[in-house]
Amino acid sequence: MSEEPRIDIRAVGDLLDGTWKDVRRQTREVLAGQEFHPPLDGTVADKRAWTLGRLHALVEHGTAARAFPAEFGGHDDNGGNLAGFEELVAADPSLQIKGGVQWGLFGGAILHLGTAEHHRRWLPGAISLEIPGAFAMTETGHGSDVASLATIAKYDPQTEEFEITTPFRAAWKDYLGNAAQDARAAVVFAQLETLGVRHGVHAFFVPIRDDNGAFLPGIGGEDDGPKGGLNGVDNGRLHFDHVRVPRTNLLNRYGDVAPDGTYSSPIASPGRRFFTMLGTLVQGRVSLDGAAVTAAKLGLDIAIRYGLQRRQFSGSDEHRETVLLDYQRHQRRLFPLLAKTYAAQFAHEQLLTEFDRVFSGTDDSDEARQLLETEAAGFKALSTWQALDTLQECREACGGQGFLAENRITGLRADLDVYATFEGDNTVLLQLVAKRLLADYSKEFRNIDAGGVARFIATQAAEFTLHRSGLRNLGESVADAIPTAPIGLRLRAVEAQTELIASRAQTMVAELARNLRPAAKLPRAEAAALFDRNQHELIETARAHVELRQWRLFCDAVERVQDPGTRKVLARLRDLFGLTLIEEHIGWHLMYGRLSMKRAREVGPTIERLLVKLRPHALDLVEAFGYGPGHRRAPIATDAESVRQREAWEWQRRRRASRDQPREEKHLRR
Amino acid sequence: MSEEPRIDIRAVGDLLDGTWKDVRRQTREVLAGQEFHPPLDGTVADKRAWTLGRLHALVEHGTAARAFPAEFGGHDDNGGNLAGFEELVAADPSLQIKGGVQWGLFGGAILHLGTAEHHRRWLPGAISLEIPGAFAMTETGHGSDVASLATIAKYDPQTEEFEITTPFRAAWKDYLGNAAQDARAAVVFAQLETLGVRHGVHAFFVPIRDDNGAFLPGIGGEDDGPKGGLNGVDNGRLHFDHVRVPRTNLLNRYGDVAPDGTYSSPIASPGRRFFTMLGTLVQGRVSLDGAAVTAAKLGLDIAIRYGLQRRQFSGSDEHRETVLLDYQRHQRRLFPLLAKTYAAQFAHEQLLTEFDRVFSGTDDSDEARQLLETEAAGFKALSTWQALDTLQECREACGGQGFLAENRITGLRADLDVYATFEGDNTVLLQLVAKRLLADYSKEFRNIDAGGVARFIATQAAEFTLHRSGLRNLGESVADAIPTAPIGLRLRAVEAQTELIASRAQTMVAELARNLRPAAKLPRAEAAALFDRNQHELIETARAHVELRQWRLFCDAVERVQDPGTRKVLARLRDLFGLTLIEEHIGWHLMYGRLSMKRAREVGPTIERLLVKLRPHALDLVEAFGYGPGHRRAPIATDAESVRQREAWEWQRRRRASRDQPREEKHLRR
Repeated sequence: MSEEPRIDIRAVGDLLDGTWKDVRRQTREVLAGQEFHPPLDGTVADKRAWTLGRLHALVEHGTAARAFPAEFGGHDDNGGNLAGFEELVAADPSLQIKGGVQWGLFGGAILHLGTAEHHRRWLPGAISLEIPGAFAMTETGHGSDVASLATIAKYDPQTEEFEITTPFRAAWKDYLGNAAQDARAAVVFAQLETLGVRHGVHAFFVPIRDDNGAFLPGIGGEDDGPKGGLNGVDNGRLHFDHVRVPRTNLLNRYGDVAPDGTYSSPIASPGRRFFTMLGTLVQGRVSLDGAAVTAAKLGLDIAIRYGLQRRQFSGSDEHRETVLLDYQRHQRRLFPLLAKTYAAQFAHEQLLTEFDRVFSGTDDSDEARQLLETEAAGFKALSTWQALDTLQECREACGGQGFLAENRITGLRADLDVYATFEGDNTVLLQLVAKRLLADYSKEFRNIDAGGVARFIATQAAEFTLHRSGLRNLGESVADAIPTAPIGLRLRAVEAQTELIASRAQTMVAELARNLRPAAKLPRAEAAALFDRNQHELIETARAHVELRQWRLFCDAVERVQDPGTRKVLARLRDLFGLTLIEEHIGWHLMYGRLSMKRAREVGPTIERLLVKLRPHALDLVEAFGYGPGHRRAPIATDAESVRQREAWEWQRRRRASRDQPREEKHLRR
Repeated sequence: MSEEPRIDIRAVGDLLDGTWKDVRRQTREVLAGQEFHPPLDGTVADKRAWTLGRLHALVEHGTAARAFPAEFGGHDDNGGNLAGFEELVAADPSLQIKGGVQWGLFGGAILHLGTAEHHRRWLPGAISLEIPGAFAMTETGHGSDVASLATIAKYDPQTEEFEITTPFRAAWKDYLGNAAQDARAAVVFAQLETLGVRHGVHAFFVPIRDDNGAFLPGIGGEDDGPKGGLNGVDNGRLHFDHVRVPRTNLLNRYGDVAPDGTYSSPIASPGRRFFTMLGTLVQGRVSLDGAAVTAAKLGLDIAIRYGLQRRQFSGSDEHRETVLLDYQRHQRRLFPLLAKTYAAQFAHEQLLTEFDRVFSGTDDSDEARQLLETEAAGFKALSTWQALDTLQECREACGGQGFLAENRITGLRADLDVYATFEGDNTVLLQLVAKRLLADYSKEFRNIDAGGVARFIATQAAEFTLHRSGLRNLGESVADAIPTAPIGLRLRAVEAQTELIASRAQTMVAELARNLRPAAKLPRAEAAALFDRNQHELIETARAHVELRQWRLFCDAVERVQDPGTRKVLARLRDLFGLTLIEEHIGWHLMYGRLSMKRAREVGPTIERLLVKLRPHALDLVEAFGYGPGHRRAPIATDAESVRQREAWEWQRRRRASRDQPREEKHLRR
């Protein structure tokens, strides 16, 4: 077919790599070197040592400082910094996470929660790794529910010190990166008490180990030990027995204590203050969202390259087996995930842009922050789950070869596993998104927390997002009258897909709101029970909304493509994404009368026709991710398989041609 | 509620553990000991050494010989042997697999493919581990397609030897357990050639290493290296350069070569001979099916115990957070998987019974063998995927704690990962099941291979299953007229669920047959293309059939329960299983008019009511699995969390009661 369009790989690469494409590509260049290829075998101690060594190498490469102010050798480049960090997954996810702990969480807390003197004292050491640090927020008893943490920092006006104490075992700080081994200091989150009043969670800079790595007096801890992945990160526990730090170790940007013990804060509301402090942590979620997409890209890059070479079973040609990627089922397994990965990347680019606008101060309005936090929560939840599904499917699509560590996929999957529950458990994050949708939908839900009803859908940013903005900010409006007529357009029409995806998301919000409306007037226990009976729907509603956002952003990205051939192929990929979503929720569209039985039966065949049309572009679509052999590092993604096959064919051809080829018993018997 | 039924845990345990419950329990008792608890950290070499050591311990415990004849110290107990092996997963899946390689594959091949002299010479060493052995079937170029393997064994009448040769790199034996390190001999599968005729794949006993572990002349190999899991098994590659073995090393039960080179076989048809030889391997799949269920049980046992203790966020009670398992979503995540695990166990018990009947000779008819092979293929495919989904959900349901290696779930999942693609790739196995369904449905499909069309749905047992039996043997019949009227019964009626699940499976076969019917008259390439366009449906049809089988076997199991309370609870669990299947395929039931829109909308709420009713029985239902602390070995499944919470409450209670409790800033401001 001479008219078959071709995509402009470079242009698609630019579209995917987005605003910070230069940083991404520079980082990739660094990571292609052997120095950043971790050994496949080793103990937990070996993996930790390798990762720490690479962290120092990143300092030398200048990767570490990018987000910090110029006076500390940085570029004040928030978006670029995260873009670069996300790429570290191509080397090793442990490197991304340990770097994220050191520079994003520990350094970031000093930068965002501390003030000038703190910056001067500790930022240079945090950036240079002279002060390896832990971010001591999570406790054994409380992960996603930060407001409930129990460590106490009590001010003593006599000595002008805070006394930090762990009151019971459940309040041990837990799961802290760097804490098991490397950290010399920690930013410790504790309930600040002064003059008999508790002012809520604040952060303190606390030295924890001496120069020999021994705990300082009053500090103890444990190693979290081996994990299911990310073993390059030394997670550990910490506890504090009347540990005293100077008053000035309080990171005091949002709350301070005078020498006499008087508390003051630029933010009057304790709730708002809490969420403002925690809001600085949104970069963790943004960065996990991007990292998850990077991992999915690598998995698909490897699996699709292998699928284009590996042959099993003969189909149309007796002497030549069929390439895996020519099987419908193989396409069905991988191409929808490829489409989802493109969608997630386009969504991530939007999120990163919003993040950069807020953190650079270009638009640091409450509204922009709230939108950022909602999107970070929703996108991170979907992209991390998608990455796990994608890596698993890629693993299986590569058969036993996919299970060998050298082929990377199992390692990536093992490391990424915890992304689904850290920096906010995905199910909690989606409830946060749903709460925002409800608040936007109807005023009644804006202060539902006031009644104490919905703590179980509250997380860090929850209260903060309640009081503001409308659904329009999320790019959507909910019609009062929900459409129920079947769509008339053909399924491939982009308007038809938009109509189905959007009206599902909107209808679900409206229906959820209707179900939950009585809660405001019920006693606490009954209201909580009502919320609980709708928890599954709450989460699915949020998911529907995030999918809609991904869909719209994919549509926007296609609109930006100039080259007609490229545009045509990307539009097919977008349609595959849309139809995959519609197929996943086909029961809903039927139950709500949006698809007729006849039309619904066309969804599968339409998808299958798209798979065939996308097949010729499979390699180009992964090539556009911009990774090379030094990033994939998977022997099955080289041409080794093709070389073996050519050798085997050549042998068989020679044998068929020679006179000493044995006859087949089964042919003799005929 | 005083009328709330209670289950008889012991009775449910007996039902689950089935015919070989004594073997299962004896094995569990052995495995509860520290000796069988692998260290969590270590290199690949460490893990291999530990596993080999435990294999020797199993010899001492008498576990190894159970399937072998009495004259070799065994019990001729095929069913009991597999039941015991499946339990090894509770210690470490590597142990199950390395034991399976040594005694099931290597020893099993000598037993089933060899004759008396072979048994006498090699079985004692295989059983005692004096001869560690590899099973050299898979080649780098061919995994699931055994008929295509390329290693050659050419008979030389001059020396009365076979000369075994690897003709090219793709024909290296690959992924062989024991081959990287421990094996001293291998059963090598090769194309037998004698007197200028090729007689197809046969098995040969080939010594490969000397007493010092060095390769014998002509033999070479490689280590497959670290894997995504199962690192206690030393997988490796082997190749043969004109390696000579005596004529009598041919395992000659199904095919022999006389000193002069004359070939003879008790089975005239080469195709049938091939599938008979490979049929002895079915035990591998049966055992993976059972092992997958064991792993899923352990994951649920751990996650449900933790979910019953761990509290997060306060709901109805301000001072007391809610137990995770009281959240609807948490129940939604875990209970359907619990129901599926019960279903898979009941299905496995049936499979194991069929396996034992065939292998003990009680019913070794072709029909029984074919049924066994089809069911093993289908059950193994579904249960291994289910186990992975279950373990992943359990991991996430335990949050970050689930990611710690000490809590077992990530390790089990990593090890089980490859179960989805070894001993037959699940997608290939389901195509085999579909082919059988088609053959049973209509004669036209019985010799579809004759045209060479469907090699891509052919695997080991494929041809063998084509010529026999009817769908009735699989317990089903397909009505010519497919029902299209909506069901009138209420959803909880077991007949309604049966009707929906069964008619979907039956309709899918009929529809697939209609779509594929033209293939028989098409040229090869077009027929292959037609099959490929229906590959996804082919696989989904097989899945629907296996789900129906699981459903029926769950129904049967409930029927066998005497105690009314127990029966009532198990019936609820069965209904949850049925309704979960119906919800997963709700689009289909709507598209085919079997559920009205109104009825379809009731499925979700009906499930959610069942979750609430099952909630009080969650602990009993996992208790019935029969595992103890020595099997779970997960700190989060002990009462550590409850102890920590009690300590925290006690502290908080004392503080509230004392006078020096600080006031909250937010309360002061009101």
